Amino acid sequence: MNHIITVSREFGSGGRELGKRLAEALGFSYYDREIVAALAEKTGLDEDYLAKRTESGAMAEFPIHFARTFAQIPTISDDSVKLMTMQTTLIKEIAAKGDCVIVGRAADSILEEYDPFRIFVYADEVSKLARCRERAEEGENLTDREIVRAMKRIDKARAEFHNIISEYRWGEKEGYDLCVNTTGLVIKQIIPALADYYRRLVS
Amino acid sequence: MNHIITVSREFGSGGRELGKRLAEALGFSYYDREIVAALAEKTGLDEDYLAKRTESGAMAEFPIHFARTFAQIPTISDDSVKLMTMQTTLIKEIAAKGDCVIVGRAADSILEEYDPFRIFVYADEVSKLARCRERAEEGENLTDREIVRAMKRIDKARAEFHNIISEYRWGEKEGYDLCVNTTGLVIKQIIPALADYYRRLVS
Repeated sequence: MNHIITVSREFGSGGRELGKRLAEALGFSYYDREIVAALAEKTGLDEDYLAKRTESGAMAEFPIHFARTFAQIPTISDDSVKLMTMQTTLIKEIAAKGDCVIVGRAADSILEEYDPFRIFVYADEVSKLARCRERAEEGENLTDREIVRAMKRIDKARAEFHNIISEYRWGEKEGYDLCVNTTGLVIKQIIPALADYYRRLVS
Repeated sequence: MNHIITVSREFGSGGRELGKRLAEALGFSYYDREIVAALAEKTGLDEDYLAKRTESGAMAEFPIHFARTFAQIPTISDDSVKLMTMQTTLIKEIAAKGDCVIVGRAADSILEEYDPFRIFVYADEVSKLARCRERAEEGENLTDREIVRAMKRIDKARAEFHNIISEYRWGEKEGYDLCVNTTGLVIKQIIPALADYYRRLVS
């Protein structure tokens, strides 16, 4: 059976970077936005539109000011259920293809049968704020308060999406194998140790 | 400043083993029951008595049937405050001596000024039960239910002790740098990776 690592993360915690680098270190495929792109191809729907419909967490891909325009969390309409079902199928296809790291999208629960190694990445507010500022696009002039509010809204949406599917609540350590606090941490530095941790688990 | 690692753990999760092995791997001193022994020497009080007075978590040192006799969590009497103050002083003395791993006793909060690397070790109930059975003394004939009840009581006492001192709630991931789920895991195997993780953080 293929080796699957899932990365769930708080907005601004650097979970995406951690997932990407870990995949590189292990020689695994990496999936995040790629899932939305594949879904767009299948449905003919707009990728950006799908991103916000299939996982609010996908908003992390957008500059923060974009996230502000989605104050409402999408309610579970028939359409949403259809899209979520398609996404679930896609995630299972991806897992069947080969070893991979999948970020977000409740893949930890969807791929339960693979016994994935489930990582949760989190950090304190100051640290997440700093990361958001770092990756902000030029011309973004949000106050700290506005960024924090956006971060919270996105995480709330991620949690709600996850909790529909999973037996564990989003971010509750019991649902993960390793919870990594990235506060004050250079993610690149810990990757070899993380990769080694994983290899030791599966060897 | 000396390097300090604190290990908090659920009863039966193997946190003690993890702490001990990690200390060995890093060449750090290891403190757990040693703190109680030192306290016994200072006060002239019985070590076993002190163990249950200074941290209910210290009951983990006893065979499980022993823990059953402490249904009551010690209330915070003047005596307890005095003992806790002495223990705090001792833990600070230990930290000042050299690099070390300290298990339990809210050392994560007591040694805040050292910016310790704070690990939390946890596992699912089945896994903790199996560990308890493994280390049970001969002649211990508790049912699974009795063990689970004892585990919960001990963790509850640990949490209450910790929450008096700490700004974070016991076991809440935000209060730790790394949360390790030991379910189905051979602790010995992950130690080199954990030691490497720590070295990378402080290098």
